[in-house]
Amino acid sequence: MTRGKLYVLSGPSGVGKSTAVHEVMRRHPSLRFSVSVTTREMRPGEVEGESYYFITRRQFQEMLERNELLEHAEYVGNCYGTPEGPINRMLEDGVDVLLDIEPCGALQVQQRRPDATLIFMAAPSFSEIERRLRGRGDTAQDKIEARLERARWEYQQAQKYDYIVVNDDVGHAAAEIEAIMLAEKCRAHIRLDYLKEER
Amino acid sequence: MTRGKLYVLSGPSGVGKSTAVHEVMRRHPSLRFSVSVTTREMRPGEVEGESYYFITRRQFQEMLERNELLEHAEYVGNCYGTPEGPINRMLEDGVDVLLDIEPCGALQVQQRRPDATLIFMAAPSFSEIERRLRGRGDTAQDKIEARLERARWEYQQAQKYDYIVVNDDVGHAAAEIEAIMLAEKCRAHIRLDYLKEER
Repeated sequence: MTRGKLYVLSGPSGVGKSTAVHEVMRRHPSLRFSVSVTTREMRPGEVEGESYYFITRRQFQEMLERNELLEHAEYVGNCYGTPEGPINRMLEDGVDVLLDIEPCGALQVQQRRPDATLIFMAAPSFSEIERRLRGRGDTAQDKIEARLERARWEYQQAQKYDYIVVNDDVGHAAAEIEAIMLAEKCRAHIRLDYLKEER
Repeated sequence: MTRGKLYVLSGPSGVGKSTAVHEVMRRHPSLRFSVSVTTREMRPGEVEGESYYFITRRQFQEMLERNELLEHAEYVGNCYGTPEGPINRMLEDGVDVLLDIEPCGALQVQQRRPDATLIFMAAPSFSEIERRLRGRGDTAQDKIEARLERARWEYQQAQKYDYIVVNDDVGHAAAEIEAIMLAEKCRAHIRLDYLKEER
Protein backbone atom coordinates (compact mmCIF):
# COMPACT_ATOMS: atom_id res chain seq x y z
CA MET A 1 0.00 0.00 0.00
CA THR A 2 1.18 3.51 -0.73
CA ARG A 3 2.01 5.43 2.44
CA GLY A 4 -0.05 8.52 3.18
CA LYS A 5 1.41 12.03 2.86
CA LEU A 6 1.74 14.58 5.62
CA TYR A 7 0.82 18.16 4.65
CA VAL A 8 1.28 21.18 6.91
CA LEU A 9 -0.71 24.32 6.19
CA SER A 10 0.49 27.37 8.03
CA GLY A 11 0.60 31.13 7.83
CA PRO A 12 -0.08 34.28 9.81
CA SER A 13 -3.12 34.52 12.03
CA GLY A 14 -6.06 36.06 10.16
CA VAL A 15 -5.03 34.82 6.74
CA GLY A 16 -7.99 32.46 6.43
CA LYS A 17 -6.33 29.05 6.92
CA SER A 18 -9.25 27.36 8.63
CA THR A 19 -11.78 28.41 5.98
CA ALA A 20 -9.50 27.04 3.27
CA VAL A 21 -8.92 23.85 5.26
CA HIS A 22 -12.67 23.31 5.54
CA GLU A 23 -13.05 23.75 1.79
CA VAL A 24 -10.23 21.28 1.05
CA MET A 25 -11.66 18.73 3.51
CA ARG A 26 -15.10 19.12 1.94
CA ARG A 27 -13.65 18.26 -1.48
CA HIS A 28 -11.45 15.44 -0.09
CA PRO A 29 -13.35 13.59 2.61
CA SER A 30 -10.60 10.92 2.72
CA LEU A 31 -8.09 13.50 3.96
CA ARG A 32 -7.70 13.42 7.74
CA PHE A 33 -7.14 16.26 10.09
CA SER A 34 -4.90 15.94 13.12
CA VAL A 35 -6.38 16.79 16.54
CA SER A 36 -4.06 18.72 18.87
CA VAL A 37 -3.71 18.46 22.63
CA THR A 38 -4.05 21.54 24.82
CA THR A 39 -3.88 22.41 28.50
CA ARG A 40 -6.40 25.21 28.21
CA GLU A 41 -9.96 24.81 29.46
CA MET A 42 -12.67 23.58 27.15
CA ARG A 43 -14.86 26.36 25.80
CA PRO A 44 -18.62 26.10 25.22
CA GLY A 45 -19.31 24.24 21.97
CA GLU A 46 -15.97 22.47 21.90
CA VAL A 47 -15.88 18.68 21.76
CA GLU A 48 -13.21 16.48 23.37
CA GLY A 49 -11.28 14.65 20.64
CA GLU A 50 -12.64 16.90 17.90
CA SER A 51 -11.68 20.47 18.76
CA TYR A 52 -8.79 19.30 20.92
CA TYR A 53 -7.79 16.62 23.37
CA PHE A 54 -7.98 18.51 26.65
CA ILE A 55 -5.20 17.37 28.97
CA THR A 56 -3.53 18.53 32.20
CA ARG A 57 -0.23 20.36 32.27
CA ARG A 58 1.31 17.27 33.89
CA GLN A 59 0.08 15.03 31.05
CA PHE A 60 1.46 17.55 28.56
CA GLN A 61 4.83 17.51 30.33
CA GLU A 62 4.89 13.70 30.20
CA MET A 63 4.13 13.69 26.46
CA LEU A 64 7.02 16.12 25.93
CA GLU A 65 9.38 13.96 28.00
CA ARG A 66 8.39 10.84 26.04
CA ASN A 67 9.08 12.81 22.83
CA GLU A 68 5.53 12.17 21.64
CA LEU A 69 4.84 15.63 20.24
CA LEU A 70 5.55 16.50 16.64
CA GLU A 71 5.52 20.19 17.59
CA HIS A 72 4.40 22.24 20.57
CA ALA A 73 4.02 25.84 21.68
CA GLU A 74 2.87 27.91 24.62
CA TYR A 75 0.34 30.66 23.93
CA VAL A 76 -1.16 33.03 26.53
CA GLY A 77 -0.15 30.68 29.33
CA ASN A 78 -1.56 27.52 27.75
CA CYS A 79 0.30 24.66 26.05
CA TYR A 80 -0.61 23.25 22.65
CA GLY A 81 0.90 20.26 20.85
CA THR A 82 0.44 17.78 18.01
CA PRO A 83 0.75 14.11 19.03
CA GLU A 84 2.85 12.19 16.50
CA GLY A 85 1.57 8.65 17.18
CA PRO A 86 -1.92 8.99 15.64
CA ILE A 87 -0.44 10.75 12.61
CA ASN A 88 2.05 7.95 12.01
CA ARG A 89 -0.70 5.35 12.25
CA MET A 90 -2.84 7.20 9.69
CA LEU A 91 0.10 7.59 7.30
CA GLU A 92 0.94 3.87 7.60
CA ASP A 93 -2.69 3.10 6.74
CA GLY A 94 -2.25 5.08 3.51
CA VAL A 95 -4.27 8.04 4.79
CA ASP A 96 -3.17 11.60 3.97
CA VAL A 97 -3.02 13.93 6.95
CA LEU A 98 -3.36 17.72 7.00
CA LEU A 99 -2.08 19.86 9.88
CA ASP A 100 -3.21 23.46 10.36
CA ILE A 101 -0.63 24.99 12.70
CA GLU A 102 1.08 28.32 13.23
CA PRO A 103 4.46 28.96 11.56
CA CYS A 104 6.62 28.30 14.62
CA GLY A 105 5.11 24.80 14.89
CA ALA A 106 5.36 24.26 11.13
CA LEU A 107 9.11 24.81 11.22
CA GLN A 108 9.41 22.29 14.08
CA VAL A 109 7.57 19.73 11.92
CA GLN A 110 9.88 20.48 8.99
CA GLN A 111 12.96 19.73 11.09
CA ARG A 112 11.53 16.54 12.55
CA ARG A 113 9.78 15.23 9.42
CA PRO A 114 11.54 15.88 6.12
CA ASP A 115 8.77 13.82 4.48
CA ALA A 116 6.20 16.53 5.31
CA THR A 117 5.15 19.04 2.65
CA LEU A 118 4.87 22.59 4.00
CA ILE A 119 2.40 25.03 2.50
CA PHE A 120 2.46 28.68 3.56
CA MET A 121 -0.77 30.60 3.19
CA ALA A 122 -0.26 34.28 2.46
CA ALA A 123 -2.75 37.11 2.17
CA PRO A 124 -2.83 38.87 -1.21
CA SER A 125 -0.71 41.58 0.44
CA PHE A 126 0.67 42.37 3.85
CA SER A 127 -1.61 45.41 4.14
CA GLU A 128 -4.51 42.95 3.80
CA ILE A 129 -3.23 41.07 6.89
CA GLU A 130 -2.96 44.40 8.70
CA ARG A 131 -6.50 45.31 7.70
CA ARG A 132 -7.84 41.96 8.91
CA LEU A 133 -5.97 42.11 12.22
CA ARG A 134 -7.08 45.69 12.91
CA GLY A 135 -10.58 44.94 11.69
CA ARG A 136 -11.26 42.52 14.53
CA GLY A 137 -11.99 45.62 16.56
CA ASP A 138 -11.90 43.91 19.94
CA THR A 139 -8.27 44.52 20.63
CA ALA A 140 -6.12 47.25 22.17
CA GLN A 141 -3.60 49.06 19.97
CA ASP A 142 -0.52 47.52 21.61
CA LYS A 143 -1.91 44.01 21.14
CA ILE A 144 -2.53 44.74 17.46
CA GLU A 145 1.05 45.98 17.11
CA ALA A 146 2.34 42.79 18.76
CA ARG A 147 0.25 40.67 16.36
CA LEU A 148 1.51 42.63 13.37
CA GLU A 149 5.10 42.16 14.54
CA ARG A 150 4.45 38.44 14.81
CA ALA A 151 2.81 38.36 11.37
CA ARG A 152 5.87 40.10 9.90
CA TRP A 153 8.16 37.46 11.41
CA GLU A 154 5.85 34.73 10.12
CA TYR A 155 5.93 36.19 6.61
CA GLN A 156 9.71 36.09 6.67
CA GLN A 157 9.52 32.32 7.30
CA ALA A 158 7.67 31.74 4.01
CA GLN A 159 10.94 31.16 2.16
CA LYS A 160 11.53 28.03 4.24
CA TYR A 161 8.32 26.41 2.99
CA ASP A 162 7.87 24.16 -0.03
CA TYR A 163 4.89 26.05 -1.42
CA ILE A 164 3.15 29.39 -1.00
CA VAL A 165 -0.58 29.73 -1.62
CA VAL A 166 -2.10 33.19 -1.92
CA ASN A 167 -5.52 33.43 -0.32
CA ASP A 168 -7.16 36.01 -2.57
CA ASP A 169 -10.26 33.78 -2.77
CA VAL A 170 -11.07 30.65 -0.78
CA GLY A 171 -12.00 28.55 -3.83
CA HIS A 172 -8.80 29.56 -5.57
CA ALA A 173 -6.64 28.88 -2.51
CA ALA A 174 -8.31 25.48 -1.99
CA ALA A 175 -7.70 24.61 -5.65
CA GLU A 176 -4.02 25.43 -5.25
CA ILE A 177 -3.77 23.29 -2.10
CA GLU A 178 -5.52 20.44 -3.95
CA ALA A 179 -3.09 20.78 -6.90
CA ILE A 180 -0.12 20.68 -4.53
CA MET A 181 -1.46 17.54 -2.84
CA LEU A 182 -2.01 15.78 -6.18
CA ALA A 183 1.35 16.91 -7.61
CA GLU A 184 3.16 15.63 -4.51
CA LYS A 185 1.64 12.20 -5.19
CA CYS A 186 3.20 12.35 -8.68
CA ARG A 187 6.73 13.13 -7.46
CA ALA A 188 9.10 10.74 -9.17
CA HIS A 189 10.61 9.28 -5.99
CA ILE A 190 7.14 8.39 -4.73
CA ARG A 191 5.76 7.06 -8.01
CA LEU A 192 8.91 5.02 -8.69
CA ASP A 193 7.95 2.58 -5.92
CA TYR A 194 4.62 2.22 -7.66
CA LEU A 195 6.30 1.51 -11.02
CA LYS A 196 8.57 -1.07 -9.43
CA GLU A 197 5.57 -2.86 -7.95
CA GLU A 198 3.85 -2.85 -11.32
CA ARG A 199 6.66 -4.31 -13.37
CA MET B 1 5.62 40.17 -14.86
CA THR B 2 5.99 36.59 -13.71
CA ARG B 3 8.18 34.57 -16.03
CA GLY B 4 6.57 31.60 -17.80
CA LYS B 5 7.41 28.02 -16.84
CA LEU B 6 8.91 25.39 -19.13
CA TYR B 7 7.38 21.91 -18.84
CA VAL B 8 8.70 18.83 -20.60
CA LEU B 9 6.39 15.86 -21.07
CA SER B 10 8.14 12.70 -22.11
CA GLY B 11 7.86 8.93 -21.97
CA PRO B 12 8.08 5.80 -24.08
CA SER B 13 6.56 5.75 -27.54
CA GLY B 14 2.98 4.47 -27.46
CA VAL B 15 2.23 5.68 -23.94
CA GLY B 16 -0.32 8.26 -25.13
CA LYS B 17 1.60 11.52 -24.65
CA SER B 18 0.09 13.40 -27.57
CA THR B 19 -3.51 12.57 -26.58
CA ALA B 20 -2.81 13.82 -23.07
CA VAL B 21 -1.08 16.94 -24.43
CA HIS B 22 -4.13 17.74 -26.56
CA GLU B 23 -6.39 17.39 -23.53
CA VAL B 24 -4.15 19.65 -21.41
CA MET B 25 -3.95 22.27 -24.20
CA ARG B 26 -7.73 22.14 -24.61
CA ARG B 27 -8.15 22.96 -20.89
CA HIS B 28 -5.36 25.59 -20.94
CA PRO B 29 -5.48 27.56 -24.18
CA SER B 30 -2.88 30.01 -22.80
CA LEU B 31 -0.29 27.22 -22.66
CA ARG B 32 1.96 27.22 -25.72
CA PHE B 33 3.44 24.29 -27.53
CA SER B 34 6.93 24.41 -28.98
CA VAL B 35 7.34 23.62 -32.69
CA SER B 36 10.38 21.50 -33.57
CA VAL B 37 12.62 21.67 -36.63
CA THR B 38 13.21 18.59 -38.76
CA THR B 39 15.17 17.66 -41.85
CA ARG B 40 12.67 15.04 -42.97
CA GLU B 41 10.28 15.69 -45.84
CA MET B 42 6.88 17.19 -45.21
CA ARG B 43 4.11 14.58 -45.22
CA PRO B 44 0.63 15.15 -46.64
CA GLY B 45 -1.50 17.09 -44.16
CA GLU B 46 1.46 18.60 -42.32
CA VAL B 47 1.73 22.38 -42.06
CA GLU B 48 4.99 24.34 -42.04
CA GLY B 49 5.40 26.07 -38.65
CA GLU B 50 2.67 23.98 -37.05
CA SER B 51 3.66 20.33 -37.39
CA TYR B 52 7.34 21.23 -37.75
CA TYR B 53 9.63 23.79 -39.29
CA PHE B 54 11.00 21.88 -42.28
CA ILE B 55 14.65 22.77 -42.82
CA THR B 56 17.64 21.44 -44.76
CA ARG B 57 20.38 19.38 -43.20
CA ARG B 58 22.73 22.30 -43.71
CA GLN B 59 20.41 24.68 -41.86
CA PHE B 60 20.14 22.11 -39.08
CA GLN B 61 23.92 21.87 -38.87
CA GLU B 62 24.19 25.65 -38.65
CA MET B 63 21.63 25.79 -35.81
CA LEU B 64 23.66 23.16 -33.97
CA GLU B 65 26.88 25.09 -34.48
CA ARG B 66 25.26 28.30 -33.21
CA ASN B 67 24.08 26.34 -30.15
CA GLU B 68 20.47 27.27 -30.92
CA LEU B 69 18.92 23.88 -30.17
CA LEU B 70 17.64 23.02 -26.72
CA GLU B 71 17.83 19.33 -27.65
CA HIS B 72 18.24 17.34 -30.81
CA ALA B 73 18.23 13.76 -32.06
CA GLU B 74 18.59 11.73 -35.23
CA TYR B 75 15.88 9.19 -36.00
CA VAL B 76 15.76 6.90 -39.06
CA GLY B 77 18.21 9.14 -40.89
CA ASN B 78 16.41 12.43 -40.17
CA CYS B 79 17.33 15.14 -37.69
CA TYR B 80 14.93 16.67 -35.18
CA GLY B 81 15.53 19.54 -32.80
CA THR B 82 13.88 22.11 -30.51
CA PRO B 83 14.91 25.74 -31.16
CA GLU B 84 15.57 27.53 -27.88
CA GLY B 85 15.05 31.15 -29.01
CA PRO B 86 11.26 31.08 -29.49
CA ILE B 87 10.88 29.26 -26.16
CA ASN B 88 12.90 31.89 -24.31
CA ARG B 89 10.84 34.67 -25.85
CA MET B 90 7.57 33.03 -24.78
CA LEU B 91 8.87 32.47 -21.23
CA GLU B 92 9.99 36.10 -21.00
CA ASP B 93 6.51 37.15 -22.09
CA GLY B 94 5.10 35.21 -19.12
CA VAL B 95 3.79 32.39 -21.31
CA ASP B 96 4.07 28.75 -20.13
CA VAL B 97 5.54 26.36 -22.67
CA LEU B 98 5.02 22.62 -22.97
CA LEU B 99 7.41 20.34 -24.84
CA ASP B 100 6.44 16.82 -25.90
CA ILE B 101 9.73 15.07 -26.65
CA GLU B 102 11.22 11.61 -26.31
CA PRO B 103 13.24 10.76 -23.18
CA CYS B 104 16.68 11.21 -24.70
CA GLY B 105 15.78 14.82 -25.62
CA ALA B 106 14.12 15.40 -22.24
CA LEU B 107 17.37 14.57 -20.44
CA GLN B 108 19.23 17.02 -22.69
CA VAL B 109 16.74 19.74 -21.70
CA GLN B 110 17.19 18.87 -18.03
CA GLN B 111 20.95 19.35 -18.26
CA ARG B 112 20.68 22.60 -20.16
CA ARG B 113 17.69 24.11 -18.34
CA PRO B 114 17.51 23.37 -14.62
CA ASP B 115 14.42 25.66 -14.56
CA ALA B 116 12.44 23.13 -16.63
CA THR B 117 10.01 20.77 -14.93
CA LEU B 118 10.20 17.23 -16.30
CA ILE B 119 7.15 14.99 -16.33
CA PHE B 120 7.48 11.34 -17.29
CA MET B 121 4.37 9.66 -18.64
CA ALA B 122 4.18 5.96 -17.84
CA ALA B 123 1.70 3.32 -18.91
CA PRO B 124 -0.21 1.63 -16.07
CA SER B 125 2.26 -1.25 -16.47
CA PHE B 126 5.12 -2.22 -18.73
CA SER B 127 3.10 -5.08 -20.19
CA GLU B 128 0.61 -2.42 -21.33
CA ILE B 129 3.41 -0.69 -23.29
CA GLU B 130 4.33 -4.06 -24.78
CA ARG B 131 0.73 -4.71 -25.76
CA ARG B 132 0.42 -1.28 -27.41
CA LEU B 133 3.70 -1.62 -29.32
CA ARG B 134 2.84 -5.13 -30.55
CA GLY B 135 -0.74 -4.10 -31.27
CA ARG B 136 0.29 -1.69 -34.02
CA GLY B 137 0.50 -4.78 -36.20
CA ASP B 138 2.42 -3.11 -39.02
CA THR B 139 5.83 -3.99 -37.74
CA ALA B 140 8.30 -6.87 -38.07
CA GLN B 141 9.20 -8.83 -34.94
CA ASP B 142 12.79 -7.54 -34.76
CA LYS B 143 11.59 -3.93 -34.99
CA ILE B 144 9.14 -4.56 -32.15
CA GLU B 145 11.96 -6.04 -30.05
CA ALA B 146 14.11 -2.97 -30.74
CA ARG B 147 11.24 -0.68 -29.70
CA LEU B 148 10.68 -2.69 -26.52
CA GLU B 149 14.37 -2.49 -25.69
CA ARG B 150 14.21 1.26 -26.18
CA ALA B 151 11.06 1.52 -24.04
CA ARG B 152 12.82 -0.42 -21.26
CA TRP B 153 15.73 2.02 -21.35
CA GLU B 154 13.29 4.93 -21.36
CA TYR B 155 11.48 3.54 -18.31
CA GLN B 156 14.77 3.38 -16.45
CA GLN B 157 15.19 7.13 -17.00
CA ALA B 158 11.97 7.87 -15.10
CA GLN B 159 13.87 8.26 -11.84
CA LYS B 160 15.65 11.32 -13.26
CA TYR B 161 12.39 13.19 -13.77
CA ASP B 162 10.63 15.51 -11.35
CA TYR B 163 7.23 13.86 -11.70
CA ILE B 164 5.71 10.64 -13.01
CA VAL B 165 2.16 10.59 -14.37
CA VAL B 166 0.46 7.26 -14.97
CA ASN B 167 -1.68 7.24 -18.09
CA ASP B 168 -4.41 4.82 -17.05
CA ASP B 169 -7.01 7.25 -18.39
CA VAL B 170 -6.47 10.40 -20.45
CA GLY B 171 -8.68 12.62 -18.25
CA HIS B 172 -6.89 11.41 -15.14
CA ALA B 173 -3.44 11.89 -16.67
CA ALA B 174 -4.36 15.38 -17.89
CA ALA B 175 -5.64 16.27 -14.39
CA GLU B 176 -2.32 15.18 -12.90
CA ILE B 177 -0.37 17.25 -15.43
CA GLU B 178 -2.60 20.25 -14.66
CA ALA B 179 -2.05 19.80 -10.91
CA ILE B 180 1.73 19.63 -11.44
CA MET B 181 1.65 22.82 -13.51
CA LEU B 182 -0.39 24.68 -10.88
CA ALA B 183 1.69 23.35 -7.98
CA GLU B 184 4.92 24.42 -9.69
CA LYS B 185 3.51 27.96 -9.82
CA CYS B 186 3.06 27.78 -6.03
CA ARG B 187 6.67 26.73 -5.32
CA ALA B 188 8.02 28.97 -2.59
CA HIS B 189 11.05 30.24 -4.54
CA ILE B 190 8.73 31.37 -7.38
CA ARG B 191 5.99 32.87 -5.22
CA LEU B 192 8.51 34.68 -3.01
CA ASP B 193 9.25 37.12 -5.81
CA TYR B 194 5.55 37.78 -5.97
CA LEU B 195 5.36 38.41 -2.22
CA LYS B 196 8.32 40.80 -2.40
CA GLU B 197 6.60 42.77 -5.16
CA GLU B 198 3.41 42.97 -3.12
CA ARG B 199 4.94 44.28 0.11
